Amino acid sequence: MTTIDEGQSLVTLINVFDVSPDKADQLIAVLNEATRGVMRTMPGFVSANIHKSLDGARVINYAQWRSKADFEAMRSHPQAGLHMKAAAELAQKFDPTLCEVVAVHSA
Amino acid sequence: MTTIDEGQSLVTLINVFDVSPDKADQLIAVLNEATRGVMRTMPGFVSANIHKSLDGARVINYAQWRSKADFEAMRSHPQAGLHMKAAAELAQKFDPTLCEVVAVHSA
Repeated sequence: MTTIDEGQSLVTLINVFDVSPDKADQLIAVLNEATRGVMRTMPGFVSANIHKSLDGARVINYAQWRSKADFEAMRSHPQAGLHMKAAAELAQKFDPTLCEVVAVHSA
Repeated sequence: MTTIDEGQSLVTLINVFDVSPDKADQLIAVLNEATRGVMRTMPGFVSANIHKSLDGARVINYAQWRSKADFEAMRSHPQAGLHMKAAAELAQKFDPTLCEVVAVHSA
């Protein structure tokens, strides 16, 4: 289970992949495998939360890292690069944003 | 505090606003006010989690609703429409995706 809270000192990567709906499940499998095999072993990994759009044309990774430095260290790791290349090749485009939580409202 | 879990039967709206960095905080204020004043009172609202990109050029709302029908009912509510119009006018563009959680990986 992942938690989102204003008090957490984390960086959040929100990466939106546009994908042909017939390749969405394959892209999800690549992201799951990359997370299990590589990301989880890297310093500062907190969580990865994979979403599929209801129309199947997007896959979104909502990922949390301890710090921007940890995230950037992961990005420059060769193994992570291989997985990201595989994901990028399945997608039509991807659009990552590195951000911080500024407000949490609950019911 | 918000939780993300595979077992939750929810829909998630991920809405990416592109914004001039000098208007990001104003946009965040509009989204906070809309959430407090309107969204929270609507049936099926679960959470809204407002993010600001580290470069200030994006604001992202990660919002959870009980169902797609609840989300759509909110969208057609006149008060919600006014707030969404105010947010849209502050942004250069916005790009919403309605999705479901397919995998959660934690450290």
